[in-house]
Amino acid sequence: MKSGFLTAIAFGLTLTSSAQDSLSFRKISDEIMLYGTCYDNLRVLCKTVGHRISGSPAAAKAVTWGEKAMKEAGADKVWLQPADVPYWYRGEESLQLMMDGKYKKVDALSLGNSQGSDGKEIEAQVIMVHNYDEFKALPVTAVAGKIVFFNYRFRQDFIFTFEGYGDAVKYRGGSASVAAEKGAVGVIIRSMSTGADDFPHTGAMHYKDSTKRIPVMAIGNITADAFEKVCDKRTPLAKLKSQCHMMPNPVRSYNVIGEIKGSETPEKIITVGGHLDSWDVGEGAMDDGAGCVQSIEILRAFKALGLKPKCTIRAVLFMNEENGQKGGQAYADSAVAKHENHILAIETDAGGFSPRGIGMEMSQDKKEKVIKYKDLFLPYGVYDFTREEGGSDISPLGEKLKVPMAGLNPDCQRYFDYHHTNADIFENVNHRELKLGAVVLAQFIYLVSEQGLMDK
Amino acid sequence: MKSGFLTAIAFGLTLTSSAQDSLSFRKISDEIMLYGTCYDNLRVLCKTVGHRISGSPAAAKAVTWGEKAMKEAGADKVWLQPADVPYWYRGEESLQLMMDGKYKKVDALSLGNSQGSDGKEIEAQVIMVHNYDEFKALPVTAVAGKIVFFNYRFRQDFIFTFEGYGDAVKYRGGSASVAAEKGAVGVIIRSMSTGADDFPHTGAMHYKDSTKRIPVMAIGNITADAFEKVCDKRTPLAKLKSQCHMMPNPVRSYNVIGEIKGSETPEKIITVGGHLDSWDVGEGAMDDGAGCVQSIEILRAFKALGLKPKCTIRAVLFMNEENGQKGGQAYADSAVAKHENHILAIETDAGGFSPRGIGMEMSQDKKEKVIKYKDLFLPYGVYDFTREEGGSDISPLGEKLKVPMAGLNPDCQRYFDYHHTNADIFENVNHRELKLGAVVLAQFIYLVSEQGLMDK
Repeated sequence: MKSGFLTAIAFGLTLTSSAQDSLSFRKISDEIMLYGTCYDNLRVLCKTVGHRISGSPAAAKAVTWGEKAMKEAGADKVWLQPADVPYWYRGEESLQLMMDGKYKKVDALSLGNSQGSDGKEIEAQVIMVHNYDEFKALPVTAVAGKIVFFNYRFRQDFIFTFEGYGDAVKYRGGSASVAAEKGAVGVIIRSMSTGADDFPHTGAMHYKDSTKRIPVMAIGNITADAFEKVCDKRTPLAKLKSQCHMMPNPVRSYNVIGEIKGSETPEKIITVGGHLDSWDVGEGAMDDGAGCVQSIEILRAFKALGLKPKCTIRAVLFMNEENGQKGGQAYADSAVAKHENHILAIETDAGGFSPRGIGMEMSQDKKEKVIKYKDLFLPYGVYDFTREEGGSDISPLGEKLKVPMAGLNPDCQRYFDYHHTNADIFENVNHRELKLGAVVLAQFIYLVSEQGLMDK
Repeated sequence: MKSGFLTAIAFGLTLTSSAQDSLSFRKISDEIMLYGTCYDNLRVLCKTVGHRISGSPAAAKAVTWGEKAMKEAGADKVWLQPADVPYWYRGEESLQLMMDGKYKKVDALSLGNSQGSDGKEIEAQVIMVHNYDEFKALPVTAVAGKIVFFNYRFRQDFIFTFEGYGDAVKYRGGSASVAAEKGAVGVIIRSMSTGADDFPHTGAMHYKDSTKRIPVMAIGNITADAFEKVCDKRTPLAKLKSQCHMMPNPVRSYNVIGEIKGSETPEKIITVGGHLDSWDVGEGAMDDGAGCVQSIEILRAFKALGLKPKCTIRAVLFMNEENGQKGGQAYADSAVAKHENHILAIETDAGGFSPRGIGMEMSQDKKEKVIKYKDLFLPYGVYDFTREEGGSDISPLGEKLKVPMAGLNPDCQRYFDYHHTNADIFENVNHRELKLGAVVLAQFIYLVSEQGLMDK
């Protein structure tokens, strides 16, 4: 043992007591907290690849990185699984808002998947609404030919910020088509952001087939606050210019998969994964570099500790979570085609923060089996097993094969400060928090592999 | 109510059901998460006062700031409570280490309270030890005339980082006198740091009366790692120069106290506090600007909500926690002299991170009364009531008047990255985490005030 103060215990044996489980948990924790390489891996991913939107050359580079990192972690087998993904391209863009009687260039980001202005400048009056109800009450004449500013605030009163996100995100997803239905020529939205800052947040939007595809851009909270004051007084002007568009053809890309073969029941598969693609801003450190390096860390820790899990453990770096889920679908399709027996899939895609819980989307009796072990997780800060949760990459597996799903729930207070922004960089990830998330994932997977909690 | 979606409930009435408590908790949370001013207050403290070591002009400025902030929060009464504090002055300092055959100037900080080299350069051979046991085994001849490098690593395997700190901090507190006993001329320590970075951490040390007062400086983890490699190969040289010293006379300073008078039992006092002084680096944002602004926020939130607590609530910004606890002593002395009836004192001095628990240092039956209410705190991420804990500023109150004590326990993963460093700045505090800590403090205090949990 590297860590002399620990009692060495035989890991290959079936554990029978909670005291033994507790020691196993401790061994996993010590290995990762003391010798974990996930933080260093994240630095490499962020600083040598950077952001990596699906279909881009950077995403291809990330695949190469992932393959290498899986091999270095000691996976028994590493392979690439093809997935054809959309490639949305941003290009140049700018937004100017009329403030104090003159145009001011502001930080703004076109929303992902959106169609820009073909590089032409759109200048129009701006009409501000605070929500869809206000917008619905407007006559077509008030909207036609204008740019609509959807100034909906992320509700900071939700303690679980994903609830605030769920509440607000409809203004990102649907506002362009809603506005186009009344003849708007463009949309500006207040970002889905908890930030006390001015970072604009991009993210997926979608057009209705029936409406015109008008440009839509997000602005940060500070700019939105300032522009709100302007709009309260008069109907100001805005100038919007963007080149973004979806490329005509899908691009061949890949999930990166690394595996440790099960020692007793190799046909039973446990999947742990995050997504390798990111939006085309920042470095995709939290979303979801963190989940990728944590998944790889599980393999490394098992190998370093000489653990021989009964079941097969697969770390999967899914491609294209952000705007298509093509990787998740390819993984599920392959599992169906090969008649694979997946006993659990767990996703880590909520940032590299201190873990607090494990969400579960599975039958009540399976949940209860997990909850029986909850005291084991308490020393690692994990106490919440109440959330119904998996993850988008693994959801096709859940749909097609009814695989029990779980998701790591880290502390969520900071996530929507960084999510889909230029602030989502390596420096905003804390090494201990990142590692601790990997510890809890590894402990959970170990438990399921050895105790057969999820056995079908 | 500012927040329309909430059911208005009468706050002045005694609550009888847990559902009502839950609504009260929600109201407090909404008020602070939506309208809290603690984050803005912290910005002002950090950016207009900055670091503020006891006795310094900056500390005096911080007292003025605190008085103003308490009044703005709406306290019924604000006053200053005198405390005579030591004033340790750093001055110029430098450390050069022989690396790769030549001297390299490294980031280093003299430890607080230490006596420097009077501005003279001390050049000496360096002997590295990893812990006190190794040092004890050395003969005097191996140490005399040398600079000792105590290269003890902060143990990253402790999940609760305060345990790692407790384990390591003896090398900060005592190593100078230990080394001086064998004739060392100076000491370098590896900082008490979890950081994957190179920030040196200062903090209190103390000399034994019987030994020579030799200089002692801390270096960051990256420098310590590099220097360790050098020391493994040879006995290198170091050059140390510093001017730090304790000023000859104490300085008159103050605790800042703001109070809301109790509506039914004003003689019963609940104290909530943090400390206003900091080390003379960074901005004292986490340690303990966060605790100060959270304490002030309690008063503001009670006033804004029109809560009329049964008991008197006092927010106290204690002076001189870092190197003397003179403020804490003055507060307790005054309480004794005035025969005050303190039913609870709670300290917030562990950083403005997401809250996870409330530690308690009180009788078992009082603890059990609190724990009865624990489910109320769960939606706010607080689940841990197991730690035996108060805080240094309130401990004299506990000692002299047997006051039940408590301490807010936020997530501790990042605290010792920032603690006593130039990285302890406003930008490293997250606004939601800071506010959420204030929410939990306010909820706890509300419960105690209304339900009389701690009634003596």
